[in-house]
Amino acid sequence: MTLAPAIAAFADGLRADLAPAVFRELEPRYTEEPRGRFAGQGGLLLAPGSTEEVASIVRAAASAGLPIVPYGGGTGLVGGQVSDDLRDPVILSLERMTRIRSIDATENALVAEAGVILQNVHEAAEAANRLFPLTIAAQGSARIGGVLSTNAGGVNVLRYGNARDLCLGLEAVLPDGSVLQGLSPLRKNNTGYDLRHLLIGAEGTLGIITAATLKLLPRPAHEGAAMLTVRDPQAALDLLNLARDRIGEGISAFELISKTGLDFLEETVPEVRRPLSAEGNPEWSVLIDLGLGAAGDPQAALEGLFAAAHDAGLVSDGVIAQSEGQRQDFWQLRENLPEANRRIGAVSSHDISVPLAAIPRFIAEAPGALAKIGTFRINCFGHVGDGNLHYNVFPMPGRSRADHAAQRDAIKRCVHDLVHTHGGSVSAEHGVGRLKVEDMERYVDPVKLAAMRAIKDALDPKGIMNPGAVLRRR
Amino acid sequence: MTLAPAIAAFADGLRADLAPAVFRELEPRYTEEPRGRFAGQGGLLLAPGSTEEVASIVRAAASAGLPIVPYGGGTGLVGGQVSDDLRDPVILSLERMTRIRSIDATENALVAEAGVILQNVHEAAEAANRLFPLTIAAQGSARIGGVLSTNAGGVNVLRYGNARDLCLGLEAVLPDGSVLQGLSPLRKNNTGYDLRHLLIGAEGTLGIITAATLKLLPRPAHEGAAMLTVRDPQAALDLLNLARDRIGEGISAFELISKTGLDFLEETVPEVRRPLSAEGNPEWSVLIDLGLGAAGDPQAALEGLFAAAHDAGLVSDGVIAQSEGQRQDFWQLRENLPEANRRIGAVSSHDISVPLAAIPRFIAEAPGALAKIGTFRINCFGHVGDGNLHYNVFPMPGRSRADHAAQRDAIKRCVHDLVHTHGGSVSAEHGVGRLKVEDMERYVDPVKLAAMRAIKDALDPKGIMNPGAVLRRR
Repeated sequence: MTLAPAIAAFADGLRADLAPAVFRELEPRYTEEPRGRFAGQGGLLLAPGSTEEVASIVRAAASAGLPIVPYGGGTGLVGGQVSDDLRDPVILSLERMTRIRSIDATENALVAEAGVILQNVHEAAEAANRLFPLTIAAQGSARIGGVLSTNAGGVNVLRYGNARDLCLGLEAVLPDGSVLQGLSPLRKNNTGYDLRHLLIGAEGTLGIITAATLKLLPRPAHEGAAMLTVRDPQAALDLLNLARDRIGEGISAFELISKTGLDFLEETVPEVRRPLSAEGNPEWSVLIDLGLGAAGDPQAALEGLFAAAHDAGLVSDGVIAQSEGQRQDFWQLRENLPEANRRIGAVSSHDISVPLAAIPRFIAEAPGALAKIGTFRINCFGHVGDGNLHYNVFPMPGRSRADHAAQRDAIKRCVHDLVHTHGGSVSAEHGVGRLKVEDMERYVDPVKLAAMRAIKDALDPKGIMNPGAVLRRR
Repeated sequence: MTLAPAIAAFADGLRADLAPAVFRELEPRYTEEPRGRFAGQGGLLLAPGSTEEVASIVRAAASAGLPIVPYGGGTGLVGGQVSDDLRDPVILSLERMTRIRSIDATENALVAEAGVILQNVHEAAEAANRLFPLTIAAQGSARIGGVLSTNAGGVNVLRYGNARDLCLGLEAVLPDGSVLQGLSPLRKNNTGYDLRHLLIGAEGTLGIITAATLKLLPRPAHEGAAMLTVRDPQAALDLLNLARDRIGEGISAFELISKTGLDFLEETVPEVRRPLSAEGNPEWSVLIDLGLGAAGDPQAALEGLFAAAHDAGLVSDGVIAQSEGQRQDFWQLRENLPEANRRIGAVSSHDISVPLAAIPRFIAEAPGALAKIGTFRINCFGHVGDGNLHYNVFPMPGRSRADHAAQRDAIKRCVHDLVHTHGGSVSAEHGVGRLKVEDMERYVDPVKLAAMRAIKDALDPKGIMNPGAVLRRR
């Protein structure tokens, strides 16, 4: 494919300054994204090997007024990494910046370049007897730059926070090509505005993260898990409160699983083991995971919790993992839910959050609202301890997602309106990307949007950084 | 005192719209600050009772182009709350906005107006069987708006983070008088740039925080403390590492105390009990505080730590609190160190941080560097687990701080240069205010400063919000 003349000239200009390895063949994966909603129209793929090379590219692009789309692991679910309406942008991949620059167990900090894969951060931390707790389905391919740019969440946010809470400092190339030197591991540093938190979650629209100082934590000495059958989502919440009162900070994850999810698993991924021996499939289950200190005994804690919850009428059945292998089985089940969903084929998927107290009402009200649009199966699961639900709408057996294509917008609107009514968010952990720009305009405080626009224009006056993501192009 | 004509006309205009209670007598305390470095020249004191009233004032001030200095509890140590070079600014005190709007133990969140005193947040959280862990010396008078605007730190940052880490959402009046509605308690909400973290730590230069949603945590079931004698700061660090390996997240505070500090206490606050029975005063001590879950036993954990640290040659003596009363005695001692310093009278005080690994070298090198300026006593103490030291320089006995007035700038420069050499921060937890604007310009990354200036100009184009704080007036 031939590049547009302006970008071809730009590429020629860069060849004099940058190593040949920077220039790569544009493979299809760079213009595709997991959900297939956005398809890029081509572009100049550059894979710089250093912060200086990133800065050179951004300076040149700023000077030529050419748009840049940053690219990490390509796992984003909202089209932040693929522009469908730019002819030949600069696609700037961080894949060659994969160095862990340092790790310090005393400082409890690790400096990773933007292209380091999340799983590799986990492994480096473990080798230093520390924990980097951010755990997401895509951790085998997601890269740290993208993880931070989208402020990724996952299953351990309840205990450890989102990506932003696990980042101590950033190095980034700003839209004019200047390099922000902010890799300090300091826990206390009150010298001016916190640009780190502005870049985290900005999805590449305010600059390109090139490296980050990540926070490491103590590894829990003892871990344990249980799957418990609860009456309904309110009982799940009451169980969470009971668990918090009894176990406090030791709760690492608290996940809600629906009967539909278990049915989908049985249908599409039958090799996954089912821990609950109960009669039939329970309507609602909870997976609770504990990580305790040296004196802690997760199994005893879970047994005590189960007994108390049973007495309180909150749980009717349950299994406490008797080994690390069994605990891993529980997590296998949980982690295969998205795969089962993929195989069934959702009409519409929603990454939403509501205040905890609103969860039962939201789950009770949504099916009725959707029934006005059509007849669907619903798989609602997710990080209930954070109020973060993945609320996914599927066709009835024998029908396909294509049959409902015309209803997709109405479904999305219905779910998002209800979320908004309950004070929730229409993008809990996946970000805005290009998929939810319109939702932002509909649901987000206009004062916030105006301030965001002012900041974007101030830092990126030419609008070259990931145009069309988060904020509408103009 | 007569107001300047523009501000007098402004006040007259507001009287039609706002309740009489908003207009208050300007008492001297509003133009003074604890260290006596800055003295205000007067001003129009307004104490709005609601967010709407704050917005009305800011809109009117923006329209008239009049500067606003926000005022919380008045406890800031860097002159952020007092302008010494503005004739008659609007002094906007949040003292009447003292409502805790809601508290929710399920959500683990509390919504407090900006004028709520920190201690009152502690008490409200405790009444709901939850913890709001931010603990600072001024908590009996510091107000939440100021606590967040300065991103206050304190003794529990090691475990729970700074003020910014304990804030889930903000309501704020921006410089054009618009109201940012961001009080959501959601743990996961990735809809756009994080303006919350931009306003936190901005010291009122980007808007006025009017309310905040604060994060609550489980109360530790069992607490304990020990005071241990360590050979030197390196041994203190090694002890911290050992404690982390053994006790993990259960360490709530880890404070370094010097012999000079204990001497100052004995001299000026003799009623404070000394826990260490050791012969003479130890050169360096550590106060370690634990908070463990239901199954935890802090006393056993501390005994085990002491034995292991003793075997490793890290501690030579120590006392483990045998009761909550004894634990409080240890904290009384720690919390009286600043008062003892005040009574002795420092020539120069420094709120600095360095990476943990650099602490021993910094503490070893600083006295030699200062000796080139003069002969001093040094009291170095603080939150060593965060790398945050209060490095305070005192006259020798028989001399006074006034004797060294001419050396103060050189002392400050000497300490700050050394901090900078070690990759540290010249404002760890107190902020920049007006005291450290020049230090910011000297030590902070110019790319960061340029981005801060661009953001300030974009959000506050007339420069009315706390002019002269954080960034130089222009």
